[in-house]
Amino acid sequence: MRVLGVDPGLSRCGVGLIEGPPARPSLVRAGVITTAPDQPIAQRLQRVHAELSAFIAETAPDAVAVERVFFNANVRTAMGVGQAAGVVLLCAAQAGIPITEYTPTQVKSSVAGSGTADKAQVTFMVRALLRLSEPPRPADTADALALALCHLTHAPLAGHIKGRTT
Amino acid sequence: MRVLGVDPGLSRCGVGLIEGPPARPSLVRAGVITTAPDQPIAQRLQRVHAELSAFIAETAPDAVAVERVFFNANVRTAMGVGQAAGVVLLCAAQAGIPITEYTPTQVKSSVAGSGTADKAQVTFMVRALLRLSEPPRPADTADALALALCHLTHAPLAGHIKGRTT
Repeated sequence: MRVLGVDPGLSRCGVGLIEGPPARPSLVRAGVITTAPDQPIAQRLQRVHAELSAFIAETAPDAVAVERVFFNANVRTAMGVGQAAGVVLLCAAQAGIPITEYTPTQVKSSVAGSGTADKAQVTFMVRALLRLSEPPRPADTADALALALCHLTHAPLAGHIKGRTT
Repeated sequence: MRVLGVDPGLSRCGVGLIEGPPARPSLVRAGVITTAPDQPIAQRLQRVHAELSAFIAETAPDAVAVERVFFNANVRTAMGVGQAAGVVLLCAAQAGIPITEYTPTQVKSSVAGSGTADKAQVTFMVRALLRLSEPPRPADTADALALALCHLTHAPLAGHIKGRTT
């Protein structure tokens, strides 16, 4: 199973693709879609849409895991994150790929064993779980890879539950 | 000049197209894109994207005016509005149409003469300015039409200023 994790953002949108059985995941490809803050927001969203759609078309993931965004942070940043998240969800829907959203707490719990794990702990565990010789680069991809790892762990159970209730 | 006003929303996204010189605008077409709350958000965003893209392709507006969304309201609703706004901006960018965002206060000031005008006053003025025999229907289109009227009024001045500074 190939899982694409996406950490939505307007300035930097992290993407991380992993593959494998939950017990032995491996890194396929990771990167960051960046847009220039001096460009109009609509053009920046268009760039995120074009690049993410191309990434999905090239790598054909079976599932997409996206961070569920909240508005507890800076209001100005939150607007951009919300708009970018909308475009990320749109890309996956247009490609016909199942989407699951996870809160940051769920991701931290799943990957680092604690919902209050800090960024360094998450990065450390992403590196360990994917057996990387060094921390994932670019650094912005650690959260995206953590999302993908979270989904790879949860997907079999979620599928089982869904299979029983529908 | 044909101006499309869009009032972004996930459950109801109002669209209103007007045409004409600023002194005598007329209604071309208005409607509401609705999505079902029980559908996954990604599918709802996909529907907004598909319907709005089709509306733009059919009507070929020269400019798009979008409400600049803020997060002062209900946090749950704000998330959906932010995501929908991102998709609306994307549609216009993909169609290559210039976009201008206006705050609710700017729209009310422009259309009803006061930034604190209520919904009834805005609807009244939209009806008067477009010389409609009754209030615009569906009711959700009043805000979209007000955005379009606001832009039609401001566009000549904005173009003049831009023309002088670039």
